[in-house]
Amino acid sequence: MSEPHVAIVGITGAVGQEMIQCLEKRDFPIKKLTLLASAKSAGKIFSFKGKEIPVQELTLDSFDDVDIALFSAGGSISKEFAPVAAKSGAVVIDNSSAFRMDPEVPLIIPEINPEATHSNKGIIANPNCTTTVTLMGLNPLHKEWQVRGIIASSYQAVSGSGAQGIEELKNQISAINEGSSVERKVYPHQIAYNVIPQVDTFLENGYTKEEMKIENEGRKILGNSTLKASVTCVRVPVYRSHSVSVTAQFASEPDVNKARELINAAPGVSVRDEPDSGIFPTPLDTTEQDECLVGRIRKDIVLENALSFWVVGDQVRKGAALNAVQIAELLV
Amino acid sequence: MSEPHVAIVGITGAVGQEMIQCLEKRDFPIKKLTLLASAKSAGKIFSFKGKEIPVQELTLDSFDDVDIALFSAGGSISKEFAPVAAKSGAVVIDNSSAFRMDPEVPLIIPEINPEATHSNKGIIANPNCTTTVTLMGLNPLHKEWQVRGIIASSYQAVSGSGAQGIEELKNQISAINEGSSVERKVYPHQIAYNVIPQVDTFLENGYTKEEMKIENEGRKILGNSTLKASVTCVRVPVYRSHSVSVTAQFASEPDVNKARELINAAPGVSVRDEPDSGIFPTPLDTTEQDECLVGRIRKDIVLENALSFWVVGDQVRKGAALNAVQIAELLV
Repeated sequence: MSEPHVAIVGITGAVGQEMIQCLEKRDFPIKKLTLLASAKSAGKIFSFKGKEIPVQELTLDSFDDVDIALFSAGGSISKEFAPVAAKSGAVVIDNSSAFRMDPEVPLIIPEINPEATHSNKGIIANPNCTTTVTLMGLNPLHKEWQVRGIIASSYQAVSGSGAQGIEELKNQISAINEGSSVERKVYPHQIAYNVIPQVDTFLENGYTKEEMKIENEGRKILGNSTLKASVTCVRVPVYRSHSVSVTAQFASEPDVNKARELINAAPGVSVRDEPDSGIFPTPLDTTEQDECLVGRIRKDIVLENALSFWVVGDQVRKGAALNAVQIAELLV
Repeated sequence: MSEPHVAIVGITGAVGQEMIQCLEKRDFPIKKLTLLASAKSAGKIFSFKGKEIPVQELTLDSFDDVDIALFSAGGSISKEFAPVAAKSGAVVIDNSSAFRMDPEVPLIIPEINPEATHSNKGIIANPNCTTTVTLMGLNPLHKEWQVRGIIASSYQAVSGSGAQGIEELKNQISAINEGSSVERKVYPHQIAYNVIPQVDTFLENGYTKEEMKIENEGRKILGNSTLKASVTCVRVPVYRSHSVSVTAQFASEPDVNKARELINAAPGVSVRDEPDSGIFPTPLDTTEQDECLVGRIRKDIVLENALSFWVVGDQVRKGAALNAVQIAELLV
């Protein structure tokens, strides 16, 4: 596969839009680009490398000579169409949660477990965005000291809910500014000037699905079947980039300076950690950036063999579109 | 002391303003109210129970027949004037951090350790706002199962930085709305549509002063000299009310249902915890409310004998002004 025919399924969404930009910016070798969406978006035009490409309606016949299909149109579309695409010979890179925990499906962060890509049987899963951001900071430390458990709290941007999340925050800020009443469609509570300790639906154990993804997907990506993760996922009125406050306990004793070296030496992630000079990453620093950033690295004062740190990444880019395109790069 | 002469030092600040409202709303028995501030605010008028009271300049002679002096004008004013007020016979209730760790000074949350109030030698300290909110949720559980350590991340409102924090968020939101450039005065980074993992200055161990207050002040208030607390304090674009995501490990095994009962039975704090119906507290729910609210209570899946929960409280009110007035109520 040297110059593949690539399809993007869900081109009108926030992640689909970011995918087309990532393909162009990274000069991904491409023979043909097909843009797919629901019937109501068919005919819309998007430009790619100076060419205008019309959106086609997604159907069972959409994948006839597609080599790589980047899916980001929600779990139910993936469940229905990803097997069809795979059967017709494409490799699907799926951004939904539909296949992530399927033992037949590799779950890939290219900087962490690229080798698993090649065992795919037509579908490769892209991890949850909060998981990816967290693991980009954690993995360099894990490789040195073996992570056992993490306790984390997230600060998740509204673009994690797609274009409608962005719209809801904008509309609420405007409404408050104009003194009119605040409307809610996407979130269970007002998100403007508020924070909401719920992302995704709740499970029996009191955690949300989103919260459990860090443990479940983290085990698979790190190849660490006993990893434990207690996470509280919180939506905050930030447009883009997720932040995660992490306390990680390791099998052996970690060192703060060494941790900084390891993270800086790892691909796709860097340290911004001179707190006395006000240098630590904030969501604005990683907005529309490829790299994840880590700061506030310190020896944890409660748990043995533990570090606390703060990791930030653009969840639309590294947490979704970029990671998918990087997986595609592993295939060509 | 049945109808004391009360003075408020720092009446023009956000907490000073909240103090005068708390005194009025709680119908605090009062003979005379004196309002004190710096020379530049002298002559300003504030109303209390229908009377207009002019602000007087704070001087060394301000406390001559004052019985209770509520201080909220910053640590350096407290250090200079609280001992003067105490020497002239007033009991100072100080909202700054100046005296909190002084072994001669009781540090009080009235719902938790009211008995310590009476050992005062003229100065009583009001705890840090994040500490108060956290302990309001934690103490009912601590009394039953004895807390050993906590790992927490905060979501702190800009009013924690006083009126200027509120102003900065407002101005930045307006500037972004108008497409003009964002100015910073209070925070080291833009706070509008961003989160900042720094509250207060950094210490040698990589934690901030604010972060260490939960351990230091928590030990004193709970009478638990071995409490450990690893906290990450984060400023969020919320106007009022702090939220804290807490994982607490206990000496004995806690139970989720019992935890809800204990919190509901405790004064000043209630449970809002039906996550399947979207019921959990957000900062807007406690804004300008006396009560702290707790939700997301669940058995922690990483640490033994641990619960994770989410606690929210109005840090200007319960985290500062209300708590100070409640301490004053213990004196009369």
